[in-house]
Amino acid sequence: MIERHFSNARMSQMVTYPLSGTAVVLAGLAADDPTGDVKSQTAQVLAKIDRFLEQAGTDKTRITHVYVWLPDIGDFEAMNSVYDAWVAQGHQPARACVEAKLADPRLKVEIQAFAIKP
Amino acid sequence: MIERHFSNARMSQMVTYPLSGTAVVLAGLAADDPTGDVKSQTAQVLAKIDRFLEQAGTDKTRITHVYVWLPDIGDFEAMNSVYDAWVAQGHQPARACVEAKLADPRLKVEIQAFAIKP
Amino acid sequence: MIERHFSNARMSQMVTYPLSGTAVVLAGLAADDPTGDVKSQTAQVLAKIDRFLEQAGTDKTRITHVYVWLPDIGDFEAMNSVYDAWVAQGHQPARACVEAKLADPRLKVEIQAFAIKP
Repeated sequence: MIERHFSNARMSQMVTYPLSGTAVVLAGLAADDPTGDVKSQTAQVLAKIDRFLEQAGTDKTRITHVYVWLPDIGDFEAMNSVYDAWVAQGHQPARACVEAKLADPRLKVEIQAFAIKP
Repeated sequence: MIERHFSNARMSQMVTYPLSGTAVVLAGLAADDPTGDVKSQTAQVLAKIDRFLEQAGTDKTRITHVYVWLPDIGDFEAMNSVYDAWVAQGHQPARACVEAKLADPRLKVEIQAFAIKP
Repeated sequence: MIERHFSNARMSQMVTYPLSGTAVVLAGLAADDPTGDVKSQTAQVLAKIDRFLEQAGTDKTRITHVYVWLPDIGDFEAMNSVYDAWVAQGHQPARACVEAKLADPRLKVEIQAFAIKP
């Protein structure tokens, strides 16, 4: 149903999916505990995404695409070390990741996910 | 039809909606008069969003999600003071807001909205 | 089917389209050869978008909206000189373009496109 193309372990360069069923849009999500490092905050955000998607009746195998904002792009590899372990293999979303300052200077990552529910 | 979850007065952490009807995508919109402060520019952009959505036959109660880009994240609260008064209570979109410089240095905010039309 | 409103040669301020058929989401795409200038990199990315959309059975006349991230917003006009020549007239997508640093400091532009397939 969701088709993923030109994929590596982290992401797909293209994702196609039928415009039917239900769309699930999450807000840009940040860590509830902003005191941790980028790995801790990434783990918190991804766990929150999992919880929200479960609440909507779907899961990370049905994420179509993701945005990642890092206030310090130097955290790219640290964020990815947690992100890559979380991604459902065979279901890698499309992704864009850029540097951007966030409203709370303690926050080290913000992630937004889009999913569908059959 | 559009369901909003984990909402406060400003935004919803998750929005779900049926993939049927018509999608309305606006461009990232800026103020027509770029000489005002961030509050003035936010008000201009939100009024433009309202006009465009009306033109499409929908309105702000059917916005699914919004991006806000601020060249100076220090304007977060000033932007929000206008944004929060504009949001249709009971219909708070998901949102992500990050700092990003814009093409015209006089611009203090850019906003993009996505809506549906039943 | 896709309707474009308030358009100039570069972009449309509003795009509407029926939520039926297939959605095509590309990742944020960068140049394969990051040694070129912003014009060269923009041309590479747009050619990649064309190839991916063809692979999905659609093309640039069915792009709904586009994001452009520039690590140096001073490259706005140079990027646009290539972008404007590429846009399918009569089918201008909605667009947002902001400054954002990218993971590889040699990259001068990242572009993401969303399209549909009837």
